[in-house]
Amino acid sequence: MKGLSRDLGQILDRNRVLTDPEDLLAYTNDATHYFKRSMPDAVVLPNTTEEVSRVMEYASKHRIPVTPRGAGSGLSGACTPVHGGIVMDMKRMNRILEIDERNMTAAVEAGVVLSRFHRTVEKMGLFYPPDPQSMSVCTLGGNVATRAGGPRGVKYGTTGNYVLGLEIVLPDGTVINSGGKFVKQTVGYDITRLMTGSEGTLGVITRINLRLIALPPEQKTIVVSCESPEQAAEIVSEIIARGTVPSMLEYLGQAAVGLMNSIISPPLTVDAGAYLLIEVDGTRTQVDYDTEVITNLCREMQPRAVRVIEDEKEAASYWKARSNLYPLLMTLMERVITEDLTVPRNMLPQMVRMVQEVSAATGVGIGMGGHAGDGNIHPTILQFQTSPELDEKSQIAIAELLKKGLELGGTISGEHGIGIHKSEYVAWELGEAQIELMKRIKKAFDPLNIMNPGKIWPEGGE
Amino acid sequence: MKGLSRDLGQILDRNRVLTDPEDLLAYTNDATHYFKRSMPDAVVLPNTTEEVSRVMEYASKHRIPVTPRGAGSGLSGACTPVHGGIVMDMKRMNRILEIDERNMTAAVEAGVVLSRFHRTVEKMGLFYPPDPQSMSVCTLGGNVATRAGGPRGVKYGTTGNYVLGLEIVLPDGTVINSGGKFVKQTVGYDITRLMTGSEGTLGVITRINLRLIALPPEQKTIVVSCESPEQAAEIVSEIIARGTVPSMLEYLGQAAVGLMNSIISPPLTVDAGAYLLIEVDGTRTQVDYDTEVITNLCREMQPRAVRVIEDEKEAASYWKARSNLYPLLMTLMERVITEDLTVPRNMLPQMVRMVQEVSAATGVGIGMGGHAGDGNIHPTILQFQTSPELDEKSQIAIAELLKKGLELGGTISGEHGIGIHKSEYVAWELGEAQIELMKRIKKAFDPLNIMNPGKIWPEGGE
Repeated sequence: MKGLSRDLGQILDRNRVLTDPEDLLAYTNDATHYFKRSMPDAVVLPNTTEEVSRVMEYASKHRIPVTPRGAGSGLSGACTPVHGGIVMDMKRMNRILEIDERNMTAAVEAGVVLSRFHRTVEKMGLFYPPDPQSMSVCTLGGNVATRAGGPRGVKYGTTGNYVLGLEIVLPDGTVINSGGKFVKQTVGYDITRLMTGSEGTLGVITRINLRLIALPPEQKTIVVSCESPEQAAEIVSEIIARGTVPSMLEYLGQAAVGLMNSIISPPLTVDAGAYLLIEVDGTRTQVDYDTEVITNLCREMQPRAVRVIEDEKEAASYWKARSNLYPLLMTLMERVITEDLTVPRNMLPQMVRMVQEVSAATGVGIGMGGHAGDGNIHPTILQFQTSPELDEKSQIAIAELLKKGLELGGTISGEHGIGIHKSEYVAWELGEAQIELMKRIKKAFDPLNIMNPGKIWPEGGE
Repeated sequence: MKGLSRDLGQILDRNRVLTDPEDLLAYTNDATHYFKRSMPDAVVLPNTTEEVSRVMEYASKHRIPVTPRGAGSGLSGACTPVHGGIVMDMKRMNRILEIDERNMTAAVEAGVVLSRFHRTVEKMGLFYPPDPQSMSVCTLGGNVATRAGGPRGVKYGTTGNYVLGLEIVLPDGTVINSGGKFVKQTVGYDITRLMTGSEGTLGVITRINLRLIALPPEQKTIVVSCESPEQAAEIVSEIIARGTVPSMLEYLGQAAVGLMNSIISPPLTVDAGAYLLIEVDGTRTQVDYDTEVITNLCREMQPRAVRVIEDEKEAASYWKARSNLYPLLMTLMERVITEDLTVPRNMLPQMVRMVQEVSAATGVGIGMGGHAGDGNIHPTILQFQTSPELDEKSQIAIAELLKKGLELGGTISGEHGIGIHKSEYVAWELGEAQIELMKRIKKAFDPLNIMNPGKIWPEGGE
């Protein structure tokens, strides 16, 4: 590996090539922690698209695997190397290149951290809705590569809805630009959307053009304490069917609210079967109208309580607690496995019952929390302590959840992606013919199979 | 061709295989009329996905080109055969398979006519926003294949924003299902979006899952008579920058309004330099609020007149006239060449000036009308009478328009697609490396090059 280190040091400065084992260790996992690790042989931290291109050209010539990486906050093992090689850490490419206020677009480098971008555009009265709840660390490049979602999907859609164009370095080092600063385009195949969610397997995303919208001037938070998980799911289904669209519509299990109470101020009484945390946004008149429609509709369904949070600080504490749910879980549990099943929105009541049944049948604790308005409430396997027995039961529970979720017309991943975590289940959803097609698409981009190999579908058999 | 006719007659009923020259003639053009025609050898009208699959299997075996076709209302020559072979007319696959009111989704066959779909969902209080203004004939399959747009793009996005899943017959006859009935998914590559806008070159779209939204209860139409085209463009740019989003925001040149006056009732005085036709929609309070914001903003910019159309019938006559603008032009002109240049939304004033300059410099009459809110106002070459000289000048004008549009940061096609009409200009926008990548993607789907060959990029050189 001395040769590799030396060669890369000639492409970038030597201090932006990491090869010490203690440095490399930090690149062997993402936010999931529990996958089998594989050390990269080197990590590079490019400053420019040209450096990315030269590294790719070098990697192509020597057939060295390259795994692009944002903040490593993903939940599917998409940014960790399976076959060693080079990890391309994009965090130094962190310039906000342009915010075009009148066109309502932005151009950024892939390594820009989401929270910084949010703050910057919001100061200008602009809004970038997607927030996968890891905003303080996650990068826009990572968001695009995983087609990231988050609570605002219900009204505003996910990352894919905001990507207008990309600068992409192909595996052989060629740089192409897809899309642009315009809001629509029909010029050949939609390379922008094909790259979005491709988990670093087709090329390296170096720059991104994003669509912005006007910052909604007002918000209002509503908390609904429900008799049971089923009732919460029924209320969500009813809100969706009636056509009033909240900006966030989150389902939270009892355990989730218990944990979140360390941040919610004043804390919420934990006596209900499940909770809905709802935000509406827009102009004052629209917010008042939507608040009335939603609270009336909720009350018709007779939950324990429907409360409009009038105090802004109190409301903010709910959303801060919601954003911190995953880290809070991680402090309490030895292992947390967040599944990402997403069902048609009217199937939520069935999904909630199904998850409870799988939990009961397998004896595995499964919490639920998440983006109910998208049919995506993240069944989450909670392991206070790990053990081989619990691990085995958990694997059975996961397979059951995914199989039954697919039977409800769902998908095994709404927003986290496949990475290595779910690759063994992909065929259940897509079928072999579609996977073979995806493999041919990958080959069209990456004939040498050096871009993040070993992801999305199981290896072997080729 | 007797063998072809006989073979196809064994796959479908003989009466759904057309081979008589007079029948075939109707399949040699689309709504543009003026491309060099190529007769298909046969037209098939499948009833089922299985029939589509069997035709594709047959075509693959015998390496016969297949061109899928919806209503033939496209504007780029995408659905007309270049190399003869089979035209796959999808209009008999016209069943609305499901409207899931509570999930707000629909499942349709590709041949469903858009206006029928609109009427059906609207009766249920649901809304499918895209309308490329050929609603009474165009099919949903054609809309997806061309990533069709229309006036509502400014608020609601284009067809691609509503496609949740597809049933696709690959060139070898294999049937795959991408996406589903859920609103988000991150399971491998976004085949749904890759097919959307692929103009029949990757496979045959047989079924479509669509997202619906709640039907906005109220609308209001505003007509702005502007001093000049530049002023109209400035007002559009200002509306976009201020963040209030109308449901439609159309630019109309003086000539366009003159023509439309045969439908507008009572007719509009044709004395202004250009017009804006605006609709806002939503709840009553939202419509009132948006109407006030937009009329105030317009008045600040001192156009000739800003008029809120209170009478619903009068308002409807404006939108009916707008929908009929292209057919109205066709009755008056021997040839109409609608370009589809789309620029960043704040570049509209520059675009309007550029189009006027190109018109003056080349001596070619170029009207403007269209989706100003998307930066897409369709420079339209108007030929009262065709002649070789005018044709030559028009080609020079088109090349200038596209070149200068690209210099403004635009795209050569926002919503009509490339087909054969614009393929010679594609490299200007995408560059050779991106075109080569698209060719490799096509090969991943269609290794024998039988799916609508000769489209999107120029042939030869391979």
